Amino acid sequence: MAIGKDQRTLTYADGVITMIDQTKLPQTESWLTIDTVAELVGAIKRLSVRGAPAIGIAGAYGVAMAARLHDPATETSAFDASVAAIREARPTAVNLAVMVDRVTPIARTDAAAAEAEAHAIAEEELAASVAMGDLGADLVLELAGKDAVNAMTICNTGGLATVARGTALAVIQTLHERGVLTEAIPLETRPLLQGGRLTTWELERMGAPHRLIVDSAGPFLLARGAADVVLIGADRVAANGDTANKIGSFSLALACQHAGIPFIVVAPESTIDMTTASGADIEIEDRGPAEVISVRDTPVAPPETNAMNPAFDVTPVELITALVTETRVVRFTNGETL
Amino acid sequence: MAIGKDQRTLTYADGVITMIDQTKLPQTESWLTIDTVAELVGAIKRLSVRGAPAIGIAGAYGVAMAARLHDPATETSAFDASVAAIREARPTAVNLAVMVDRVTPIARTDAAAAEAEAHAIAEEELAASVAMGDLGADLVLELAGKDAVNAMTICNTGGLATVARGTALAVIQTLHERGVLTEAIPLETRPLLQGGRLTTWELERMGAPHRLIVDSAGPFLLARGAADVVLIGADRVAANGDTANKIGSFSLALACQHAGIPFIVVAPESTIDMTTASGADIEIEDRGPAEVISVRDTPVAPPETNAMNPAFDVTPVELITALVTETRVVRFTNGETL
Repeated sequence: MAIGKDQRTLTYADGVITMIDQTKLPQTESWLTIDTVAELVGAIKRLSVRGAPAIGIAGAYGVAMAARLHDPATETSAFDASVAAIREARPTAVNLAVMVDRVTPIARTDAAAAEAEAHAIAEEELAASVAMGDLGADLVLELAGKDAVNAMTICNTGGLATVARGTALAVIQTLHERGVLTEAIPLETRPLLQGGRLTTWELERMGAPHRLIVDSAGPFLLARGAADVVLIGADRVAANGDTANKIGSFSLALACQHAGIPFIVVAPESTIDMTTASGADIEIEDRGPAEVISVRDTPVAPPETNAMNPAFDVTPVELITALVTETRVVRFTNGETL
Repeated sequence: MAIGKDQRTLTYADGVITMIDQTKLPQTESWLTIDTVAELVGAIKRLSVRGAPAIGIAGAYGVAMAARLHDPATETSAFDASVAAIREARPTAVNLAVMVDRVTPIARTDAAAAEAEAHAIAEEELAASVAMGDLGADLVLELAGKDAVNAMTICNTGGLATVARGTALAVIQTLHERGVLTEAIPLETRPLLQGGRLTTWELERMGAPHRLIVDSAGPFLLARGAADVVLIGADRVAANGDTANKIGSFSLALACQHAGIPFIVVAPESTIDMTTASGADIEIEDRGPAEVISVRDTPVAPPETNAMNPAFDVTPVELITALVTETRVVRFTNGETL
């Protein structure tokens, strides 16, 4: 099953979840058909589905599926155990718990309504991606002042991380659909190489011209004029605009400032955390040395080498031109705030 | 053959060059014995020997070897072709051309004198490494204003890149030998991972504490105060101080400026090319997509993915605190020039 440009990477019908297995990409396009809670929990745990929105949608469909397997009225404890297992499959992914909690009360009384609610969540995510793509593309063309642009990006922020289109990559897709994308330049995104493995695959799928680069080439190529804009996603946007995202985002922001080109964050409103005052309040998770000293099980350093492995970095708002969400554009460099 | 702390990584005797095969490190310590020009050119091209000084020494010995294989007096065109092949094996490394050009006129009249000249070049390089280590360590301690320092570095600039001790890594080794190195922080240095594979191996060999990082973590960790100084080597220093070095150096320099910490280039006088006015005149070698889309033969992108692969970048002199050579410290930020 090949998937088209906007075909969803995760769907549900009649008690069956179908999802692309992201752990097999890009070498193999393999689809999982999941009709038990245990299979779904396993797929989430081993990152066959990843990206906060995509995990949330998988969880919502999972609750709908669980209500078919165990009638919440007559098999309440089995249904509750299924919901708990889905909800805890990735304890740190807040979207998963939020979406599970949104569908579960409906599923207790009306399985069909629960399925409709899960579908509504997927539709909302897709609509948000379309809106971010349009707002972002308009902004990029305005700021670049050009008829066509080169766009650099990091990590994977496309349909694989959501249900289709994505966030920063939705902007690049929209630019491509409008015929104004000259080239996309994805960074490979060590340590887990989501850019090299997944973003290249998505760009190929949408037919967008692109050339991959190693992460450290990004800043220099920006200084040499290789791109007109950098577009990134976000894990969390603090109240002052400081943005936590994949490690490497900060170095691109510094280089954009040096080169005088826009650095744009594209993320849904749900990513904005007004309870976090600034980036200084965001704790940086260290994921341990294993991911650094090997690449997809190939050793790239002596086996006992110690490492620092910050999973993400924080870009201060002073280096961010604008934030694009599904409802607005916040131009930080014009003095606008959240 | 295990090599000690200061044992040489490249030697020559009786028409045979012996060198450690850096492409096999750190998993295997394998030595190449080379007695033809084609083998030497192949070893340089595939980076079995790498690092500007080491390549220069290999080139010097190569000319001496060529003069044994083809008498320059009677087989002039074969000798000239050999010299040209060696000289052009790596276009960006000015040392290679300089050292080849130093030995070639001697080799035309006296093969034994050419060998002596090549040996003299190796001795000069070792003495230069010792001097750079001392001058650099003095400078780092002065600029940091601390009793002990954390030092970040990129690529491999140690004994593997020279004949022993190296350039930027010689400074780190000297700091360690003086008991004032808290920690070294090497970047892994994609695409070829010289930092992960080679610098960690050298730091381990010298007993210096260190933690490896992915390249894109360097700028952010500098912003968070993880290091007191960045030390890099150089492939070529232009007349105005602009410095060509491994891709990623530029992003560290930008981050040092942002963090207000010194960014120091450590390179022998032979690396300074007064015939190149500025970095704008330095040709950036693109090594093609293969190194980007795979890591040590493990695919990390779809197989047909195109890539940009600049092997080097150029850091403008405005971002460089000082250049340390074997004879002097040039403090660019104090207005000093070459």
